[in-house]
This record gives sequence, C-alpha cells and structure tokens, in this order.
Amino acid sequence: MKSDLNALMQENEVDGLLVVGPAMHNPAMVYLTGGGHLTGAELIMKRGGQGILFHGPMERDEAAKSGLETRSYSNYPMADLLKESNGDRAQAAVLKYQRMFEDAGLTRGRVAIFGVTELGNIFPLLTGLQKRLPGLEFIGDQEGKIIKKAMATKESAEVERIRRMGQITTGVVGQVADYLSSQRVKDGVLVNADGSPVTIGEVKKRINLWLSERGAENPEGTIFAIGRDAGVPHSSGTPTDLLRLGQTIVFDIYPCEEGGGYFYDFTRTWCLGYAPDEAQKLYEQVKEVFLTLMSELKMGEDFSIYQRRTCEMYEAMGHPTILGSPETEEGYVHGVGHGVGLHIHERPFSRMNGMNDDLLEAGVVMTIEPGLYYPEKGLGVRLEDTVWVRPDGVLEVLAPYPLDFVLPVKG
Amino acid sequence: MKSDLNALMQENEVDGLLVVGPAMHNPAMVYLTGGGHLTGAELIMKRGGQGILFHGPMERDEAAKSGLETRSYSNYPMADLLKESNGDRAQAAVLKYQRMFEDAGLTRGRVAIFGVTELGNIFPLLTGLQKRLPGLEFIGDQEGKIIKKAMATKESAEVERIRRMGQITTGVVGQVADYLSSQRVKDGVLVNADGSPVTIGEVKKRINLWLSERGAENPEGTIFAIGRDAGVPHSSGTPTDLLRLGQTIVFDIYPCEEGGGYFYDFTRTWCLGYAPDEAQKLYEQVKEVFLTLMSELKMGEDFSIYQRRTCEMYEAMGHPTILGSPETEEGYVHGVGHGVGLHIHERPFSRMNGMNDDLLEAGVVMTIEPGLYYPEKGLGVRLEDTVWVRPDGVLEVLAPYPLDFVLPVKG
Repeated sequence: MKSDLNALMQENEVDGLLVVGPAMHNPAMVYLTGGGHLTGAELIMKRGGQGILFHGPMERDEAAKSGLETRSYSNYPMADLLKESNGDRAQAAVLKYQRMFEDAGLTRGRVAIFGVTELGNIFPLLTGLQKRLPGLEFIGDQEGKIIKKAMATKESAEVERIRRMGQITTGVVGQVADYLSSQRVKDGVLVNADGSPVTIGEVKKRINLWLSERGAENPEGTIFAIGRDAGVPHSSGTPTDLLRLGQTIVFDIYPCEEGGGYFYDFTRTWCLGYAPDEAQKLYEQVKEVFLTLMSELKMGEDFSIYQRRTCEMYEAMGHPTILGSPETEEGYVHGVGHGVGLHIHERPFSRMNGMNDDLLEAGVVMTIEPGLYYPEKGLGVRLEDTVWVRPDGVLEVLAPYPLDFVLPVKG
Repeated sequence: MKSDLNALMQENEVDGLLVVGPAMHNPAMVYLTGGGHLTGAELIMKRGGQGILFHGPMERDEAAKSGLETRSYSNYPMADLLKESNGDRAQAAVLKYQRMFEDAGLTRGRVAIFGVTELGNIFPLLTGLQKRLPGLEFIGDQEGKIIKKAMATKESAEVERIRRMGQITTGVVGQVADYLSSQRVKDGVLVNADGSPVTIGEVKKRINLWLSERGAENPEGTIFAIGRDAGVPHSSGTPTDLLRLGQTIVFDIYPCEEGGGYFYDFTRTWCLGYAPDEAQKLYEQVKEVFLTLMSELKMGEDFSIYQRRTCEMYEAMGHPTILGSPETEEGYVHGVGHGVGLHIHERPFSRMNGMNDDLLEAGVVMTIEPGLYYPEKGLGVRLEDTVWVRPDGVLEVLAPYPLDFVLPVKG
C-alpha cells in the first residue's frame, strides 16, 4: 500500500524517487498523483517527504488536483538556462533538471527512477545530471521492490475500483455471448441478418463500443482468437476470421478505467453450437485445474507454488508443460497468474524464480488463469478470473461469471 | 518519410537504432514495425539494414506481422544467462541485451535510443551494457533529428489515415453540436429530457462513445472546458460543470486510430444560445488571425514565422502575447501549431527557437491553432484545423468543418 512506500525506500536504501511522464496510462505517476490530464511531468520525492510535482505552465490546474506541492517549468526560463549553458541546448536541459532536483532538496544519494516515457528524451538528461551531481546515483527498480511492491497490496478503495471494472467487463462479456447466440448459422459459420458472415474484427468493434458505453477504456486491445490463433496464447485473433461452429474461441478481455486507471482481467473459452470431443476434453481438464487451484489458494502462500501445482496437475494428465519441457510451445506454456492494478500485469507474479517474495498477502488482487494450447490442432482453452485476497483471508472473485464452454446458437 | 531514415542516421553520425517498448501507443515502434499486439519488444537496427525485432515467445505471430526479421527471447534462456552471471539477476538481464546486440551485429558505435517504456526497467540495462561494450554509446534524440524528422513528412498512405481520423473527428463534433442544440434550457443551463442539468462529464462520455462507434480511440482525453476552464488552455474541463448559456466552450478533440495509430487534432469554440459582446469580439479576433494564417501559409517556410506573425497580429489588437511578455498567462500564450501523426504533438513545431529547421515541407501535416485566453474573465477562444502540405504546394485542411461560434439551443 502507498503507506508502505517510505519503509520500502528505507529497506532498499533509496534516498529519493524520480517519477516522469504523463499522469495518464503511466502507473507510477497515476499512483502517486491520482492521475489527470498532465501530458508530461516530474515528481521528485525525497524519502520522508511528499515530493514536488513539476509541470508545464499550461497544466497548472491539472497539477494542482494532485494535492501535492507543485512547481511550474516557468520557474526555469529556457533563455536563462541557455545563457548559463553558453547556448548549448542539451546542457540547458540538463541544467533545468539540476535546478529541479535542487529545489526538491535531492542532490545526493540513490534515486530510484520510474515512469513510462520516451526513453530518448530522458536518458541524456539523467546521464548528464549524474555528471553534474556526482553524489547522485540513478537506479532502476527492475525487480519491483519499491513502488510495485507497494502497489501489490491494495487499499479497499482500490479494490472497489477494480471490482467496478470487473462488473463492466463481465457485463460486456454477457453482451458478447448474447450477440453471438442471437445470430444465425449458415454453412457452419455465424452470419449477420443480411447474410454476411460475422468476423472477429466485427466482434472486437462491438466489444470496444460496449466497453466505451460503460465508461471503460481498452488500451491493450482484446484477445478474441479462434482455431489456430486460440492455440497461440497471446495471438489477439485475426480480424477477418469467421466464427466457425465447433472451434475453440479464447476470449481474454482486460479493460481499464478511463484515462488509464485500474484494470480487470478475465478470460473464458467458448465453442459455438457444439464442442468436438477433443476440445471438450481439453476444456474439462482446464476447468478441473482452474477449480482445484481456486479451492487451494491460501492467504500468505508464495504464488509460485500454484504455478508448480498447475504444471504438475497438467503433466499428470499427460500434457507437456514449461516445468518439464521449458521450451515447449504446446500444452501449458505460461504463468498461472499475476497481480492486476494500475498495470494489467504487476506483482505478485506466479513465476518460479526461487525468490519466494511474491506472496498472496492480504490486499493482493491477482489472476488465476490456467490454459492448454495445441496450435497445430487448432485448439486452445484458458479460464481466468481476478481474485482478491481479503484481509479476513477469504479469496474472493471480484466479478463472478459462469464458466460455460458451449455457447448455443440458432439454427 | 521512412525512406529518409538511413540518410538521417548518416547525417547525424548514428550507427544504429534501438527501439523499445510495445507496438501500441509507442510511435517509434509503430512507425518501424507497423504496430500490433506486441506488449514489449526491441528493434535493433544497424544503419543500412532492416533490423531484428526481438519479442516474447508468446507473441511470435504478432511479431511476424511486421515483416521484419524476428527473434524470440526464448533464444536467450534465463537459466543459461544466470549461470554465466553467477546467479546475479541484474547482470543476467544485461547479458541478454548484450547477446541481442551481438546477434544484430551492433557492438560498437553511436546508437540512438527510442521508445515509450518503463524507464526504471531499461535504464540499468543500457548503463550496464555500456560498461560491457565500451565501444557502444547510447544517445538520445531530444531534438528529433532522426525518427521524428523522418516522421515529419508523411507518405500519402499516412495522410489518408490521418484524413480518415479527421472525418471521424468532425463527424463526432457534429454529433455533439446536434446533441447540445436538441436539449432544453432551464434557468440558463442545458437540461436533459428528465430536467437534470447536462454536465461536462456527460458530454465527454458521449464523445468517447461516439468515437468508439466509429472505431477511434481517445487515449489523451478531450478538452471540453467552459468559463474559467476555457481560459486555461489545457484545462480539460470540470466533469461536474454545467453548460451555461452565453459562456465560451473550448472543445479540443484529438482521437487516434484503434491500437495507438495516427491522430487528428481539432478545436472549435462555442457559445450556447448567444454570445456576450466581449466573447463575440474575442472570437472575431481569433477567427481573423486564424483565416489570415490559413491564407498566408506557404510550402517550404519556417513554421516559426507564423508563430511570430500570430503574436504580432494579436499585439496589434492590444492583447499580451508570449512574444512581448514571455511570462503572460493571459492573451496569447501557446504555440500556433505542431505536426500531427503517430504523436499528437510532433515535428514540425512553430516555436521560435532560431533553429530554422522546422519547415513546412511537402508531406507535413500540422495544426494551426491561434487562441486567446482570459481566465479571470472566464473567457477562452481557440480555433484549430489540421492541414496537409500537399506535394503540389497546396495547403489542404484534411477535414473541413464550419467555424460557427454561437450554437442555437431550444427555448
């Protein structure tokens, strides 16, 4: 939680934070400022303080909404900076950063850097500033031990925002199911009222529309993949593909709040009209593993034990997995879950890296998503719900929805 | 244009490019790969070559759509990298990058870096790699002399995609105008059929819905700002504000293609029902400057001369501007235009930096957007169209729409 941030900085021997980029679709900045229409900004925060939010003069009202101390770039006039830098524009830009760090009282120590931003703009500023203030050391946080660690456990207000996104998500999934079930069938494919075949592209357009109607954004797109595409876990589907009966459709949907806020993550696998034996068997196996995992999840456990458990269950069923065959592209080929919040994928992760520091602590919101994939057979099945580890130890699916496999169609 | 890239690399003494991040909402990556559902990737390109696109094993099909040479991360197994790095995870990550650069044949020289990505993840990789391969130097491109310079002049296929976004944009603007004009008025504010007042938040929700219906995304939000907010150029508007008659409404809309492609940029200013004299006068002055600029634009000119011209015209009308009063927050306070493409703001820029290298060359697509702002008086007016510098020298507004100020309302 955000209140852990100072302790996490101390624990990781970090003296300050630099967060850069817009306050939309930029998790660290949204987390610390509350988000808003800031197209580019810097938050410089010394350990123990609230930090200063630096912003463009035209965005002063948006910056003020953060409730943080703010400071406009107009306090650092480019003409003065250029004069002091003998007309060298690159040096003037570095000097501006230096002044900002001085104003934030952060001129030495280890500074962890965050933010989704254009790499080519910021890299020379940081390397240039390190030369001017040699007591300052910029470090990354690739293992997510600071802000991402704080983010991993949610406050109840955050959980309610994720739940609301879950309700929007399952609402739209229901609309998609109703839409597909109400179309006609001709020559084994779904057709519109005018007789033209329904395409994946058309379904995705409806999904975006329905999400938008409910006030959600879909920045990462949707996976709606049939046949061979369903067998490739992160193929998003081919827009011109038709909806053929009896083929597995993997429908993975992960919208977020408008303006780049909290996500939800959800997958169902459907077969239109009927399921061939091979598809049905695969589905039953995935469902069995899914329900077993759901019944076994326990607050405080290391997430990776469920990844191992998933692999072992699938291997017992005769499927290759990345545990026994790390290179396999058939069978079970990905992680069983990940945290969900301002990132669609965030801590905790279920990977088996032996670090034992991705725990299902109280406040964690994560996915459980076992799947099986056989691209050469044109088959893929995945089931996914987003689960909250409640402070009372109960594991709660934030937006329940039936697991049904075969979707009835007309005709 | 993309075909200029090699020459631009040579001109800037750059031996290679590194582009990182997803292939969605990441202009440099979208430009060079064609976009797609790649959640994270690296394009490493030696000057004169096409480059190699490195991708996660689950995204191989999406990577293949780029038509580039691709290479999965599964070629760099983490277990081997960790062994070679004596279990040091940070070093293993750097070693993976080293192998990728070696495989792309780029182990020395100046490498320009691009891409919207999480800074904290990439920074330690680049600084670590520089230590391992001291012949390699990573440089930024803050002045946009490489990829952004190539992007500044559009191929006709790109212009047609921007034009299509323009048609979607003006279509939605028309829907908004029709919606506002068809509501009733009560006590000087617009009300819905049930008598509840129409809010800015409600209008923005409709805008998102209508954009989505037409297959557009709105990742940066919309400015729909009334009263004092209209007088603050980049206030996006207050969701709970009501639509009061006789107040200036600045409506600036800049959606992009689904998945993070080309943008359009458009602004009109409206007054519902009637315009007070002061607002009307401001509007007439902005319109006069707008139309004068449109008539004076000439292929090949430096964009900044139109910024100076705008300031001079406004100052002759008695308004403060950033030319005569650099610190002013009233009058004319921003740039008169910017390029539009895969970024909402890109080269060329109208800023007066004396560099004379932002020219209105053939192929440029840019905005013209003079405005006047008096926040304390609750007044703001801006008019903006997106204009293409055609190869035949004609300046063409890509999606024309009336400049009307007063929007009639019922009652």
